[in-house]
Order: sequence, then C-alpha cells, then structure tokens
Amino acid sequence: MNTEIHATYAARRARIAGWLRDRGIAAAVFEDREGRRDPTVRYLSGQPGDSFLLVTAAGRGILVSWDVNMAQAMAGVDEILAYGDFERRPVRAVLGVLAREGIGPGAQVELPSTLAYPEYIRYAEEGVDYDFLCREDGADEFARGLRAVKDDFEIAVYRRASAITDELIDALEAGVRKGTISTEADAALFLERESRARGCESMGFETLSAGPARSFGIHAFPAYTAGGFGTRGLSILDFGVCREGYTTDVTLTFVRGPVSPAQERMIALVEEAYREAAGMLRPGVPTVEISRRVDEMFAAGGFKMPHALGHGIGLEAHEAPAMRNRDDNPWVLAPGHVVTLEPGLYDPEAGGVRLENDFLIGPGGAEALTRSRIVRL
Amino acid sequence: MNTEIHATYAARRARIAGWLRDRGIAAAVFEDREGRRDPTVRYLSGQPGDSFLLVTAAGRGILVSWDVNMAQAMAGVDEILAYGDFERRPVRAVLGVLAREGIGPGAQVELPSTLAYPEYIRYAEEGVDYDFLCREDGADEFARGLRAVKDDFEIAVYRRASAITDELIDALEAGVRKGTISTEADAALFLERESRARGCESMGFETLSAGPARSFGIHAFPAYTAGGFGTRGLSILDFGVCREGYTTDVTLTFVRGPVSPAQERMIALVEEAYREAAGMLRPGVPTVEISRRVDEMFAAGGFKMPHALGHGIGLEAHEAPAMRNRDDNPWVLAPGHVVTLEPGLYDPEAGGVRLENDFLIGPGGAEALTRSRIVRL
Repeated sequence: MNTEIHATYAARRARIAGWLRDRGIAAAVFEDREGRRDPTVRYLSGQPGDSFLLVTAAGRGILVSWDVNMAQAMAGVDEILAYGDFERRPVRAVLGVLAREGIGPGAQVELPSTLAYPEYIRYAEEGVDYDFLCREDGADEFARGLRAVKDDFEIAVYRRASAITDELIDALEAGVRKGTISTEADAALFLERESRARGCESMGFETLSAGPARSFGIHAFPAYTAGGFGTRGLSILDFGVCREGYTTDVTLTFVRGPVSPAQERMIALVEEAYREAAGMLRPGVPTVEISRRVDEMFAAGGFKMPHALGHGIGLEAHEAPAMRNRDDNPWVLAPGHVVTLEPGLYDPEAGGVRLENDFLIGPGGAEALTRSRIVRL
Repeated sequence: MNTEIHATYAARRARIAGWLRDRGIAAAVFEDREGRRDPTVRYLSGQPGDSFLLVTAAGRGILVSWDVNMAQAMAGVDEILAYGDFERRPVRAVLGVLAREGIGPGAQVELPSTLAYPEYIRYAEEGVDYDFLCREDGADEFARGLRAVKDDFEIAVYRRASAITDELIDALEAGVRKGTISTEADAALFLERESRARGCESMGFETLSAGPARSFGIHAFPAYTAGGFGTRGLSILDFGVCREGYTTDVTLTFVRGPVSPAQERMIALVEEAYREAAGMLRPGVPTVEISRRVDEMFAAGGFKMPHALGHGIGLEAHEAPAMRNRDDNPWVLAPGHVVTLEPGLYDPEAGGVRLENDFLIGPGGAEALTRSRIVRL
C-alpha cells in the first residue's frame, strides 16, 4: 500500500464531502462500469474500474467492487464491499451502503449525471424514501472541475508521460524514415510495445493509424490495418500513452511527396492555425475565443474543421476544460489545466492533416509538454 | 458499395419500422457516441460509430454522423446528414430530423434506454410538443433481441472469426511452449498483429493477459504488462478477434507446475463445470438453470464464482442472451444464439483459472465454435 497516494485520495474525497455538506446532501454515488466508465472513481479511490464509490458528507469513502481481490490490492478507501453481496444490482448496492452508513429516509443522495433515465426511475421507486438528485451540475461535475486542475502529483506524472511520448515520437519518425515502420499496424504495434517497455500502463486510447488511403477520416475505422503508412500522400498517427492512469494525446502527420497544391494549402493552414492557437494559451483566456479564431482562419482559407480544436486530458482522453466553439462552452484557461490543440483538415481526395500536442497552463502562460509535428519524408 | 449488405441493413430497419407501427410510434432514435456506444447503429446501417440513427415508422433510415466522409463510405441508409449542421447538439439533431421527415408535434418518439436522466429532461423541455419514450423494454431492447439471433450472414462471419481464433490459440500455445512468448505483452501483441494479418478489424476487446502474479483478478489491470507469462503457476489469457464487427471471446489458462493441491482442485472444478454447462446447451433451456447448476458444483467444492457463467456475443463482447444466475434473467436458448461459457475461479494465493469457448445454438443442440483449453506446460 502506498500510503502517500492514499492520503491524496482521502484529501480529494474530503473536497467532495465539503461540497456535499455545503448543500445538505448526505452522499454522492459515482460509478465506473461497462458502458459507463467514469475515472472519477479512480481519482477518488485509486480503484481503476468496475466499482461504485459512495462518498458521504461525513467524509467516508465506501467502494462496492466487482472484484474484491483487486480492490484490496489497489484501492485506498474506508471500506470495500463485494458487489456480489448485493446480487450485482446497482440500486440494492447503493441502498445497502446508505443503510450501513446510517443515512436514512428523507436524505438527499446525489446520483451520477450519466445515469440512464429508466435506471433513475428504478432508484426513485425502490428507494422511495430518499430524495435522489440527478443533474448535470451535480457532484460528478464538481469532481470533473477538480480533475481539470492538475495537482503537483499529476503534473509530475504528466512530465514523465510526456517525456515517454516524445521518445516514441522520435523513434517513430526514425522508423518511418528507415522503412522499419511501413504499415499502419507497424506504427500502432510499435507504440503498444515500446510504451509498455517504458512503464506505461496501456495506450490512453486506441491508436489511430491511417495511411494516405484512409487519413480523410477524422477517426479512422478500423483504427489500423495492415495497409501502407508513410507512403505517398498524408498519413495520420494519433496516440497517447497512459501512465498511472493519465493519458497524453498527440497526432503526427507524415507527408510524402510529391504533394498536390491542395495538400500544401491544408498543411500550411493547419500549421498556421496551430501556431496561432498555441500563442493564445494562457490563464484567463476563454477557450471559445481560441477555437473561434482558428475557425476564422480556416474559413478564410475555404475550409471548415469537422471537430473541436482540442480538449482537456487527464484520466480520460477527453475531459475538462472543453476547447470548442460552442456558445455554451464556459471554460476559461487556468493554471493546472492540461489541454491539447489538434487543428485538422480533411478531404476525401487529398486526405487528412492534423497536428496535436499537449500543453500545461501555468501561472504566466503555457508550456508545450510534447513535441509532435508534421514530418516531411 | 456492397448492395447486398445494404439490403440486409434495410431489412433489419424494416423490422424496427414494423415494431414502431404496431405501437403507433413515429420514430426511434439510436445513438453510438463516446461514452455511450451502441453497435445497434452499425447493425441497422453499417456505420461503425459516432452517429445518431433515426428509423421512422415509414421505414426510412436517417444517419446524423460526426464524419460525413466516413459515413458516405460505410453506411447504407436513406440519408446522411452532418452532426455539425446541428451545432453538434443531440436534441437539435433529433428535432431537426423529425421536422425534415414531417413528423410533427404530438408524435411518439422512442429515445435510447441508455439516455441519461438530465438529457431526457432536455429532450422533454426543448421538444415539448413531442411525446418522448425512454424505457428498458423499448426499441433498443427490441433491436437487442433481433441481434441475439444471428442470421446466415452473421453465422458465416462467426465461422470465419472462430477459425481465425483457433489458429491463434494453436499458435499461442506453440509460442509459449517454444518460449517465443514469455511475457504478458508478448502474448497480447502477438494476437494484435496476427489477427490483423488474418483480416480482422481489431481485437473484440482489450486482451487480458495475466501471468501467475496477476491471474487472481477477474479482469486484470493493467490489461497486460511486461511481466512474465506462462511461468510457474496459473496464467490467464482472455481475448477475442473482431471480424466485420463481430467478436469472438475465449480464455485459455496456462498451467506450469509444480501445481499445488489448491490449484489442482480449482482446475478440476472449472473443467468439470465447463463440461457440465456445455452439455446443457440446447434450445429451450433457460440460461439461469445452467448458471445455477455451475454455482451448485462450485459451492459443493467450497468455491464461489465472482462473475456470470457466460454471455451472448456479437457486435458487442457482452450482449444478449444473458447467461447468469439472477432471478430476473429471462433468457431461454434458441437457434441462432451465439454464447460463451467461461467458468472461472480465483484466489489471491493460488491465482486464477478460467476456460472460455464460444457456442452456436442450432435447432438440435450446440456446436462449439472455438477450441480454447487449459494448457499444461
């Protein structure tokens, strides 16, 4: 047991407990299960999945886990219970823990905002004496806000993960240049192996490796094939390594000429937009402004980007703060945010070009954590 | 465009449309998006992700996709629209399509049963004139029922996917015996590479490769490491290959002696339970009976299995029919079901043993599709 990190989990749960007490709420339920993953459970307990976590206003953390053996090895909580002891029924598990904790009828209990409507109805029916809250600005949104601002422990993890990411970027470029990496699968499997050899837990998400025949897709499907990579045209490689739960997220574009005028224009626009956006990253800037500036640059060139400019990263590949152009994006950059910029343009004929790196927002500006690039072969 | 498979998608949508007409419902909404994947969208359209699909009672299929380029290459539907044209807002997209289709106020519209409670509220508020349904026995449950019974096209895919799975099982065993596969990552990456070399789209789920130090976990975390595999004790390898969207799911246990009496007892019990369960697979049998029979056998040996006996497989690694011991499991085996059996026992000291294969239920009984096994090294 790593007691230092267990103290960190307890301190994070104490902030949830304070939020609950301020609102007169007795407990909050978090869940991380198949089809509805929420790494806030890991953030607050160390348990990497398949569990419910209840945090009470009194500050207790109770984990109900599919696999008690694993929870005992990984989690730092006040109590671990077996989901099987509640017949693997979510409502029974939650009501059972509430009863054990002495939280009785009439109490307000916050449920996950991702809870399906029919499941909410079941909570309301089976737990008729409780007042169940389920809302987008509830406890899990508060937790996402905490997660958006990385602490010293998390920033240290990011520095290690970013250094590994950069090593892999350099090795990839060398492999493509030498010809030892010549298919989409070569690139993706190189990353799988080399990231684990460097102590990473996994890839942060499925590596997207798309040679010129498939780079027009924002999100290549399948993620990679035995087809050519780094051959004539535009090849995209989008990956992240996961270290102690935290993922990086970078995208390289490999360009092999001769390049068409349309491809040159797309490359130049993406590079310009990237530089412009990177120059705007600093505390106090609303992310919608950065996103709109890039939209304007692309529109002036006759293009439209079919995805968001970037996103926060952390225990999830996409988390707060949002980096997009919608009116309802409320995010303002702040110290501790770790975000990506990933301007990209796609054309069914020319293929796709995307450039993505990770940035840590500090008190005075932004620091590039990774050094991905557009590589001309 | 493969027009034959497009006709299959249209025929599947026609069954949804008939279900809607029988109930006086104007349209059903399906969604496959980050955090809420539903391959029913692919089943009904060929589109592998990041889309809404609306099926109307009139039989029309309209796809609203994040990536129109990819949808035009992959989907067989009546119309493809860009999510970006609805400001990437789910409710606007759905209301927009309803208006285009001439489905007006007062109409009943079925929403996904996985829709989060706060999102349901937003539909109800922004689409106040519609009657939105959101329930566990709605259109998506009906679609899951269709998906549980594989048609001739799907069974042919399963025969190819199973043959590949068996080739990989044999090659894995050979590699472990020769020593070319000696770490968890060796085993997992061998599968990644060799499955794609055989035309698979991806793995069906993250390969779980757990050497003796970690096999006590039901679901090893991390999924695989640079640690030893096939060394003294019990090693578990759980994987599936994905072919044209359909996944197999098998688990091998590798046993390297000397083996303790506790380990021998676990191995023998799992093999006995597996044989007993496999012998019970035939049409008309409630799956809860098979599951309870295995529970009894394990209980007689002083053990309790911490997970379900098996599950259906298809476009998802876990789908209908359920194979578990709960009172509310209503499933009765029927021809066309493709299911796994995966009895397993786990102990923090002895490690874990699990044996899993896939079976096709036919008119007269069950056929083993795969030949995974407990391998004594």
